[in-house]
Amino acid sequence: DTNFDLKEHPHSRLNILTGDWILVSPHRTKRPWQGKVEATQADDRPQYDPACYLCPTNKRADGSENPDYKGSFVFTNDYSSLLLNTPDGGLNEDELLVANSQKGICRVISFSPRHDLTLPQMTTKEISKVVDVWQSEFEDLASYPWIKHIQIFENKGDIMGCSNPHPHGQIWAQNSLPVEVAKETQQQKLHFEQKGTSLLADYLALELRKHDRIVFENEHFVVLVPFWAVWPYETMIVSKRHVTSILYFTEQEKHALADAIRRLTIRYDNMFETSFPYSAGMHQSPVNSGDHPYWHWHMHFYPPLLRSATVKKFMVGYEMLANPQRDITAEFAAEKLRGLSEIHYKTRE
Amino acid sequence: DTNFDLKEHPHSRLNILTGDWILVSPHRTKRPWQGKVEATQADDRPQYDPACYLCPTNKRADGSENPDYKGSFVFTNDYSSLLLNTPDGGLNEDELLVANSQKGICRVISFSPRHDLTLPQMTTKEISKVVDVWQSEFEDLASYPWIKHIQIFENKGDIMGCSNPHPHGQIWAQNSLPVEVAKETQQQKLHFEQKGTSLLADYLALELRKHDRIVFENEHFVVLVPFWAVWPYETMIVSKRHVTSILYFTEQEKHALADAIRRLTIRYDNMFETSFPYSAGMHQSPVNSGDHPYWHWHMHFYPPLLRSATVKKFMVGYEMLANPQRDITAEFAAEKLRGLSEIHYKTRE
Ligand SMILES: O=P(O)(O)O[C@H]1O[C@H](CO)[C@@H](O)[C@H](O)[C@H]1O
Ligand SMILES: O=P(O)(O)O[C@H]1O[C@H](CO)[C@@H](O)[C@H](O)[C@H]1O
Repeated sequence: DTNFDLKEHPHSRLNILTGDWILVSPHRTKRPWQGKVEATQADDRPQYDPACYLCPTNKRADGSENPDYKGSFVFTNDYSSLLLNTPDGGLNEDELLVANSQKGICRVISFSPRHDLTLPQMTTKEISKVVDVWQSEFEDLASYPWIKHIQIFENKGDIMGCSNPHPHGQIWAQNSLPVEVAKETQQQKLHFEQKGTSLLADYLALELRKHDRIVFENEHFVVLVPFWAVWPYETMIVSKRHVTSILYFTEQEKHALADAIRRLTIRYDNMFETSFPYSAGMHQSPVNSGDHPYWHWHMHFYPPLLRSATVKKFMVGYEMLANPQRDITAEFAAEKLRGLSEIHYKTRE
Repeated sequence: DTNFDLKEHPHSRLNILTGDWILVSPHRTKRPWQGKVEATQADDRPQYDPACYLCPTNKRADGSENPDYKGSFVFTNDYSSLLLNTPDGGLNEDELLVANSQKGICRVISFSPRHDLTLPQMTTKEISKVVDVWQSEFEDLASYPWIKHIQIFENKGDIMGCSNPHPHGQIWAQNSLPVEVAKETQQQKLHFEQKGTSLLADYLALELRKHDRIVFENEHFVVLVPFWAVWPYETMIVSKRHVTSILYFTEQEKHALADAIRRLTIRYDNMFETSFPYSAGMHQSPVNSGDHPYWHWHMHFYPPLLRSATVKKFMVGYEMLANPQRDITAEFAAEKLRGLSEIHYKTRE
């Protein structure tokens, strides 16, 4: 039927990175919301909070004292989910009860000594220094031969489970491949074997031609709403160069990544004139497990807000049991993001 | 290493129904919580609310008027995510932009005319009538030859995106298999082909022998915390008889299912003496697409609360980008649920 229209009719879209599908219901944007409304977060934090375990010179849970740091500060998570000295082992009862020991390292990275900032309120130069730390941490963690995967991420905003508003991110490194990364490895490998090219490089070329879902680009990175986006304003930062991990970014690329993160997160904050919550993180090649030439570095942003600073998208019933579902199209979201200013609303007159 | 202990050490567990893994961090239970705390929901609702679109005799968004119903009441969702008259069609650009038209029917089921009730506050006989409606709705929707999958579910509590506290559930039926159901189909089929038995029947037999994760059972159903549970107090109701869908439940089985739902949801409410939020739903055989003898009916309960009526588990950063993660073990959760009373806290002296 030639009447079928992605802008109008319910449809499913394929996530080429994972092989999963997402249900899109474009006609459903006008649903009135009578459900849960989130409280807006207090936004006037002091530059220094004596009760914050991330601020310089303060005490942490393990009794140690933070240095009087000036840029970033990295330490082992006091409540690590993965531990260094887990004994090897496992369980397999009739292939019905199957478990494996997991060993790992969880680190916390404070992005700034300033308690009152967030990434979009920092300068490109300051964010560049965070990118430097991500790179050196990646290198350091990859030097443990048993570490196979390094997950760099940030939870921003209490609605995203962030328990401390001081700007910070986390790294969880472990001895096996997490589910999402295993799926992306599989899909990129398949494409590479069949076409000899990077899946994301081919995808990027197509998106740059169409320009339907591009938010903006700089010399080294493209920011876009992926065709298969799940969250209302989900985006992806993709490197123009086919690079397997942050380890290989040049100084120019690291600076351009900081620029992309800054401009994207400012647009996000400007969307509803609020500190825009999200979970964000990089996907990159596994380490210490042979060559993965098909892996193409990228960074996902998963923000939950749908219509305002207080109404989010709930991934519940149907989504948990059956399939992720969204109400606005990726193209609509990209257009909206494209139209937003890159000057932070708080710094305007 | 023989020192490895599921009760103590971080490990991953296999979800045999989906093939996915979950990260378990048993040592992490003592993490202090400084993050988001949910408001407790007001709990004194009137029996009838003139502003509720589910209460008998009230007006709905489409202008129609609800009947003065006595048991359950079923109607087409006024803001359906799937529609009946979507034109066929799709898109495939270089296998990079892939989409398919989706056609479906979304229905809402009010469980009771009483605005102030929830399933755990209804009698087994009243819940039995809801089970009857689920069965007859399943039969009715399966009579559309193009419908391949029928998802019966309930979102309970505003924290689970439920926009109206009037007790109700939903059914989304559509022309294709959702992601989660496709995975469960695949895994059950594989097991059936290799062993000639139902995966869940074999799993149930093992769990009943061990009794580590059983919450309770009645004549026809077992309620347990699956070995691979993701949510803190996630449970599963599994039919003792290997039945592919609700269509084949006898009168006795339907009554026993109502009994299991009632007793489980009362235990949930008693956990933190609050109306316990969850998303719950049945997984069952696809329809109108050949025989699926390996499919074994079951119902999942995914409740978000972790430590109290106001502190939930956040599935964010690491979980979204890498792998679901939990802090308490399935065995701990089962023990806790087993110890709870089956008399609702609100009806006690
Ligand atoms: O249809 P409702 O109850 O308004 O909406 C709720 O359930 C749906 C199905 O799980 C979700 O897509 C929505 O995000 C949620 O708010
Ligand atoms: O480690 P945090 O920031 O205390 O905790 C937060 O991030 C973790 C990693 O995404 C999640 O497991 C927690 O549920 C969330 O609250």
